[in-house]
Amino acid sequence: MIKTDILIIGAGPTGLFAVFEAGLLQLKCHLIDALPQAGGQCSEIYPKKPIYDIPGYPEVLAGELVDNLMEQIKPFQPGFTLGERAETIDKLEDGTFVVTTNKGTKHHAPVVAIAGGLGSFEPRKPLLDNLAKYEDNGVAYMIKEPEMYRGKKVLIAGGGDSALDWSIFLADIADEVTLVHRRNEFRGALDSVEKVQHLKNEGKINLMTPSEVVALHGENALEKVTVQNVDTSEETEVEVDHFIPLFGLSPKLGPIADWGLEIEKNAIKVDNSYDYQTNIPGIYAIGDVNTYPGKLKLILCGFHEATLMCQSAYQRIFPDKKYVMKYTTVGGVTGFDGTKKEAPKAVVKSID
Amino acid sequence: MIKTDILIIGAGPTGLFAVFEAGLLQLKCHLIDALPQAGGQCSEIYPKKPIYDIPGYPEVLAGELVDNLMEQIKPFQPGFTLGERAETIDKLEDGTFVVTTNKGTKHHAPVVAIAGGLGSFEPRKPLLDNLAKYEDNGVAYMIKEPEMYRGKKVLIAGGGDSALDWSIFLADIADEVTLVHRRNEFRGALDSVEKVQHLKNEGKINLMTPSEVVALHGENALEKVTVQNVDTSEETEVEVDHFIPLFGLSPKLGPIADWGLEIEKNAIKVDNSYDYQTNIPGIYAIGDVNTYPGKLKLILCGFHEATLMCQSAYQRIFPDKKYVMKYTTVGGVTGFDGTKKEAPKAVVKSID
Ligand SMILES: Cc1cc2nc3c(=O)[nH]c(=O)nc-3n(C[C@H](O)[C@H](O)[C@H](O)COP(=O)(O)OP(=O)(O)OC[C@H]3O[C@@H](n4cnc5c(N)ncnc54)[C@H](O)[C@@H]3O)c2cc1C
Ligand SMILES: Cc1cc2nc3c(=O)[nH]c(=O)nc-3n(C[C@H](O)[C@H](O)[C@H](O)COP(=O)(O)OP(=O)(O)OC[C@H]3O[C@@H](n4cnc5c(N)ncnc54)[C@H](O)[C@@H]3O)c2cc1C
Repeated sequence: MIKTDILIIGAGPTGLFAVFEAGLLQLKCHLIDALPQAGGQCSEIYPKKPIYDIPGYPEVLAGELVDNLMEQIKPFQPGFTLGERAETIDKLEDGTFVVTTNKGTKHHAPVVAIAGGLGSFEPRKPLLDNLAKYEDNGVAYMIKEPEMYRGKKVLIAGGGDSALDWSIFLADIADEVTLVHRRNEFRGALDSVEKVQHLKNEGKINLMTPSEVVALHGENALEKVTVQNVDTSEETEVEVDHFIPLFGLSPKLGPIADWGLEIEKNAIKVDNSYDYQTNIPGIYAIGDVNTYPGKLKLILCGFHEATLMCQSAYQRIFPDKKYVMKYTTVGGVTGFDGTKKEAPKAVVKSID
Repeated sequence: MIKTDILIIGAGPTGLFAVFEAGLLQLKCHLIDALPQAGGQCSEIYPKKPIYDIPGYPEVLAGELVDNLMEQIKPFQPGFTLGERAETIDKLEDGTFVVTTNKGTKHHAPVVAIAGGLGSFEPRKPLLDNLAKYEDNGVAYMIKEPEMYRGKKVLIAGGGDSALDWSIFLADIADEVTLVHRRNEFRGALDSVEKVQHLKNEGKINLMTPSEVVALHGENALEKVTVQNVDTSEETEVEVDHFIPLFGLSPKLGPIADWGLEIEKNAIKVDNSYDYQTNIPGIYAIGDVNTYPGKLKLILCGFHEATLMCQSAYQRIFPDKKYVMKYTTVGGVTGFDGTKKEAPKAVVKSID
C-alpha cells in the first residue's frame, strides 16, 4: 500500500504543480497516471508545440513546460504510479481514502485531488479478432520502456506524429522497424516526415503504404502479422516480435464518473468560491477535469486551483494547526530531499 | 482624454498579464501606475530577488519576471500613464467610466480593472519645514528620468538598496553624487555595498555618515542643503541641484478606498465565484488588491483572476457576441501591431 498526504490522480501540468504547492506546506504527494510519462495533454498531444499564454513565458514548448515543472517539484520528491488507471475509491471509517488502479496497486491518503484533465488517455485500438490475446504479449499501444525493443523486430502502425517519431527513435534501437500506414501521406511535423523518408531511403525503416495490419499470429506470444495493401488487397506476412498500433489516445473520464461525484458536461462540479472541493469532502478536482461557472480549461487556471486546493487540504489534514503563508522569496524552498533554495540575504555593513 | 477598452489601475504583474488576456480577446488596455516603472512590488521592492513559486519557473528574479511579462504583452501595445495616481472615478450615464489622476490626466473606458496591489506606492518623506516648496523643483522621491541628472549635483539620502543602487547608477551620469545616511551601516545586497565603498574610495561618491539633511535652501529652486552629523551635531552646507530622499515607498490604498467599493481588511471585496467583479458593475478588482474567502496574495493567483476578469469584461463590452476560446497553441497570437506568432503547422506529405 502506497501512503501519502495528497494522492493526485493525473500527472498533467495541474497535478504536477500541486506537488510544489503541497510541498511548501510540507505535504507529500503521489501521482497516478494512465500514461507512461508525466505531463498530461502537454506531453501526450503537443510536446513540441509552443504555448503563448503561460504567464511570464512569451513562448514555451509544451514539453519544456513539463520539464520545468518536473524540475520545480523535484525537491518535493513526488511518487509516481505510471501506466495505471485509477479505477476505484473506497472511503475508510476514519475518513481517509484508498484508491486502487486497474493493475491492483493500492494508494492510501487523507486527501485525494483529481487532476484528471479530459480523462485518462485510452488508446484507440485496431479492430482485430485476437487482439486481446497478444496485449502485453507482443502488442502495446504506448511505448513505456524503449529499451525493451532493443534487438527486436518491431512493426508500428499509424500516420501521425507518434508513429513517425517512434519509428525514428526505434530505428536506432530495434533490429527491424516496419512502419505501416493506411495512406501514402503522413501528417506531422515537416522535420519528422523528412527524417522518416531519409531513414527509409537508407533502409533503416521498412515502409508499407497504403497498408493495414489485418491479422495477428503466434502460439503464445505474437510472432507474425498479416499486412494487406489497401489498394491491391495483396497480403504480406511480416515476422515481428512487437506490433505497436499508434492510432492516438482519446481521453475518457472513465471510472471516476462512477465515484459518486457530481458530474456536469463530463466534468466534476467543484466549489470555486472556496477550495475546489467536490461534493465528497476530502476529494478535490482541479484543472481541466473540473467545472464551475466561468470555468476556462487553461493551464494557468489549473495552477491557481491547485494552489488554493492545497491550503484547504492542509486544514483537513491538520485541523488544529494554523498555516501562515510565507513568500517563497522570503522563506525559500526547503525540499524533502534536504535541499534548500533561498534568496541571497541582505548584508548590514558600514562603508568607510 | 485617453480612451481604451479596459482601463487597468496598477501595472504590477497582475495588471500586466491582464493586457495579454485582454489582447487575446482583441480588447485594448491602458495602465495607470503611481510608480515611474511597470512591475509593481516586483520592480519596486525586490527586483533582484528570486521567486520560486511562479509555475514553470523553478527560479526567476522578480525583475526578470516583469521583463518577460512586458515582452509577452508587447504585441498588444498597452498604453501607460506612469508616475500618476488614479484619484477619482466618475460613472457616465452610458455606464462607462472616467478615471482622473492626481495630475489631471483623464482616462475613459467601459471597464475598469483595479490591479492596485497593496495600494499606490507613496514615498516616505523626511520631516523638513519647507519640503513642499521644493517638490518637483529640486526634491524628488523617485527617479523617473535618470538623464535629467546628467551634469548635475545630486544628494541622495537613505541606507537601503535604492539609495545604494541609484548612487552607483548616477555616479556615472551626475557631476557630483553625495550619499547621506543616518548610520554608518548600510543594508542591502553585499555586491551593492561593496560597489559604493569602491566608488567612494575612487572619489566618485561623497559619503556623509552618520548624517541627516536638516534644512533646505534656495530662492525658487533648491540650491543648498544643510547636513548635520548625527554624532557631533556638526553642520555642513552642501550645494546641490537635486535632493533625493530614498526612505522607501509604502503602499496606500488611498483614493480608491473612497470610490464606493466594498472594502474589507484594506482590500476590495469581489465575486470570486464568477468573475472578480466588485459591488459596482463594470469595476473589477484582481491580484493583491482584492479579497474573498481563501484569498492568497500570490502572483499566480493574480494571473488566473486577470484571465477570468477579461472574459467577463468582454461580455460587458460586447453583450451580443459570443466568444469562443481558442488555445494559443492552436490559434496563435495576433498582435495589434500586426505581428503574428503561431505554431509551425503540421504537413501532410507522402513518403515514397
Ligand atoms: C493541441 C492543444 C493545444 C493546447 N493549447 C493550450 C494553450 O495554448 N494554453 C493553455 O493554457 N492550454 C492549452 N491546452 C489545454 C491544456 O493542455 C490543458 O488545459 C492542460 O493540459 C490541463 O492540465 P491538467 O493537468 O488539468 O490535465 P491533463 O493535461 O489532461 O492531464 C490529465 C492526466 O490525468 C490522467 N488521468 C485522467 N484520469 C485518470 C485515471 N482515472 N487514472 C490515471 N490517470 C488519469 C490522464 O492520463 C492525463 O495524463 C491545449 C490542449 C491541446 C490538446
Ligand atoms: C519581498 C516580497 C517577496 C515576495 N515574494 C513573493 C513570492 O515568492 N511569490 C509570490 O507569488 N508573491 C510574492 N510576493 C508578493 C507579490 O509581489 C505580489 O503578490 C504581487 O506583486 C501582486 O501583484 P499585483 O499586480 O496584484 O500588485 P502590485 O505588484 O502591488 O502592483 C500594484 C501597482 O498598483 C499601483 N497602484 C495602486 N493604486 C494605485 C492608484 N490609485 N493609482 C496608480 N497606481 C496605483 C501601485 O503603485 C503598484 O505599482 C512578494 C512580495 C514582497 C514584497
